[in-house]
Amino acid sequence: MKFYENVDGLTEASGFFCGGIHCDVRGKRDGRIDLGIVYSKRPCSGAGVFTTNDVKAAPVLHGQAILAEGNKFHAIVVNSGNANACTGPQGEADTRTMASEVARQLKLEPEQVFVCSTGRIGEPLPMSRITAGIRDAVQDIEDEVDGGMCFQQAILTSDTTTKSCLAEFETPHGTVRVAGVAKGSGMIEPNMATMLAFIVTDASLPSQLLQDILKTATDKTFNRITIDGDMSTNDTVLTLANGFSNVDISEKTPEVLEKLQTAIEKVCACLARKMIGDGEKVTKLIELSVTGAPSDDAAEKVARNIANSLLVKTSWYGSDPNWGRIVDAAGYAKIGVDFSKIELFYNEVPVLAKGKALTRNKDKWKEVVAEKQFTIHLELNLGQGTCNLLTTDLSEAYVGFNKSE
Amino acid sequence: MKFYENVDGLTEASGFFCGGIHCDVRGKRDGRIDLGIVYSKRPCSGAGVFTTNDVKAAPVLHGQAILAEGNKFHAIVVNSGNANACTGPQGEADTRTMASEVARQLKLEPEQVFVCSTGRIGEPLPMSRITAGIRDAVQDIEDEVDGGMCFQQAILTSDTTTKSCLAEFETPHGTVRVAGVAKGSGMIEPNMATMLAFIVTDASLPSQLLQDILKTATDKTFNRITIDGDMSTNDTVLTLANGFSNVDISEKTPEVLEKLQTAIEKVCACLARKMIGDGEKVTKLIELSVTGAPSDDAAEKVARNIANSLLVKTSWYGSDPNWGRIVDAAGYAKIGVDFSKIELFYNEVPVLAKGKALTRNKDKWKEVVAEKQFTIHLELNLGQGTCNLLTTDLSEAYVGFNKSE
Repeated sequence: MKFYENVDGLTEASGFFCGGIHCDVRGKRDGRIDLGIVYSKRPCSGAGVFTTNDVKAAPVLHGQAILAEGNKFHAIVVNSGNANACTGPQGEADTRTMASEVARQLKLEPEQVFVCSTGRIGEPLPMSRITAGIRDAVQDIEDEVDGGMCFQQAILTSDTTTKSCLAEFETPHGTVRVAGVAKGSGMIEPNMATMLAFIVTDASLPSQLLQDILKTATDKTFNRITIDGDMSTNDTVLTLANGFSNVDISEKTPEVLEKLQTAIEKVCACLARKMIGDGEKVTKLIELSVTGAPSDDAAEKVARNIANSLLVKTSWYGSDPNWGRIVDAAGYAKIGVDFSKIELFYNEVPVLAKGKALTRNKDKWKEVVAEKQFTIHLELNLGQGTCNLLTTDLSEAYVGFNKSE
Repeated sequence: MKFYENVDGLTEASGFFCGGIHCDVRGKRDGRIDLGIVYSKRPCSGAGVFTTNDVKAAPVLHGQAILAEGNKFHAIVVNSGNANACTGPQGEADTRTMASEVARQLKLEPEQVFVCSTGRIGEPLPMSRITAGIRDAVQDIEDEVDGGMCFQQAILTSDTTTKSCLAEFETPHGTVRVAGVAKGSGMIEPNMATMLAFIVTDASLPSQLLQDILKTATDKTFNRITIDGDMSTNDTVLTLANGFSNVDISEKTPEVLEKLQTAIEKVCACLARKMIGDGEKVTKLIELSVTGAPSDDAAEKVARNIANSLLVKTSWYGSDPNWGRIVDAAGYAKIGVDFSKIELFYNEVPVLAKGKALTRNKDKWKEVVAEKQFTIHLELNLGQGTCNLLTTDLSEAYVGFNKSE
């Protein structure tokens, strides 16, 4: 399997077209590209995974509804700068208008169009500007302008860079490509976070199978990252498969199916890592592994407590190898942690052995946590449960950046 | 009932003596008072509430054990600068040594002496200096030096000020006094936080009754504050009642019992508020009230999510009336929040009415969150569950302060 990062975007998969334009969603006349459309002429099977927040933005509710109908899909329209969340019946109407405007101009049905919005919560969308923007973006698509990169830019909020990758594999019937793009940055905690990710493939497969693959991949990747523990109202991962490669995939082709699964997981993992590396004002990337918990759920609880502890995150930021804060955070997960059984490692360097601090290694601990990227491995020695999380430090600049929108 | 703040300390209740000296726990020769003792010649009934962290410091385990034995108590010894947490069998031995040194010098039994430690996790106590310190502090007590204020100082870590108060009430048999002192500052999240609080009364009452009163008071006060969501390994609230006032309190004297309950609750509430007001690098104090939840537990979940959300806390710090982040945090508590039913108030100013933002009040919202202290009231309109929490903002200085110890 071939794998590429920082590619043109979703247009890398055959039969997908993209547009991205500035329509001034933010009302700042800053020229920023803020509306994008993905389009496939051939009908696609589709799959989606959405925020589990009780408070779901209007586009999330719409996406869940059209997926449930079992439609074939043709397009996704995305705006950044305004989340269309907490906007009540008007917000729902605006989402429907976005879908129907795209449908009208591309001669589709409204329920064949996904809508995503990301940005500020609680403000009505500037619909006249958005409608004009949809017209411009459709024009780019009809002109077959190479809009992959513009689409990548259109979905960004506080991201500092675009995020894309491509997996490619061979089958007896031809080459299959899986392309993905994403945005992340703030409000990032699994299940999901203000993150949008779009993955398209030119394979052909049934929606239900695509949904299963996407769910599995998401649980292992996007749902295993946390920056600030805040879960957004808008998080969405959408996948479309248009069959343009003429490679049909089903449970009857287990080898090819497995390749597709691997490709989608690789794309998700790569995008998740890019997202966390570009987290708001992040200076360090930490791979946290909790093993030996009574269950996977217990391991996840411990891992999330550590990854979201302000005191742990600030100590990472300060390059302080403060194992006490890690153990403290593990302890208040209340899953039955026994300090006298704990083993802890920074990279490969032992820190605690059965609850005893190996202070002779102290200089090595400091070297590890001074790095830009390191691993923390906590072995609880209680059972077989494990959890891996990707997380970050917390900087003063994060607070400064988020103190007002 | 009379109530005073910033008093001499535990010596305000009759028959209690205090000492506090510098014995250089931190090894910095900074002259800081870091070891204190409270002593009552008359035996006391005792009660305690401790951290629920799986990882409990040695003094916590010791306190729980001697309370379970149903002893009478005479003294509490406290050191700051070192938490004696995650220190294994040596830490447990050190705690026992501290108790037995105090006991030997004051002619008590070791199991009549509580021990508390607060400060850095994972370092062994400097026992020779601590033993010398105990001797000095006992000397002060035997000389009847007025050590109330020194004890208050001895327990502080990153606190910027001592915290004390006194409640006094009359009974047919005389005056009863309830005095309290506390330390707080970092790692503050209920159930409990690196907080120590000591409350003494010269009333006489059975230990079990004292325990019930303390538990109820703690649940309403100390367990309703959060600064950073981190729960410590050492949190302890201890109460001693020495009967020096000759006022006997029991279930047979319901009126006096109620007065004592009120007094202890008032003392706890006052100390909790002082603690949060002195939280690490806090600039604002927020009283958060969640009502109309399906249950009290659900209300607490929502309240804690809001109070511990980095994005909410940083917006408060920036005086940004960002209701979207509050609603988002409520939503990921996943207790069934329905946005279209939500009402939200900053002080008395309506922000959301049944999920509709009352933007005409926007200037007033801004005025409220620009204040040093304000209330946030979220009405979910789902049921009868309520929760009140006291919390704070999160400043850049918090991160800077905690990035290394």
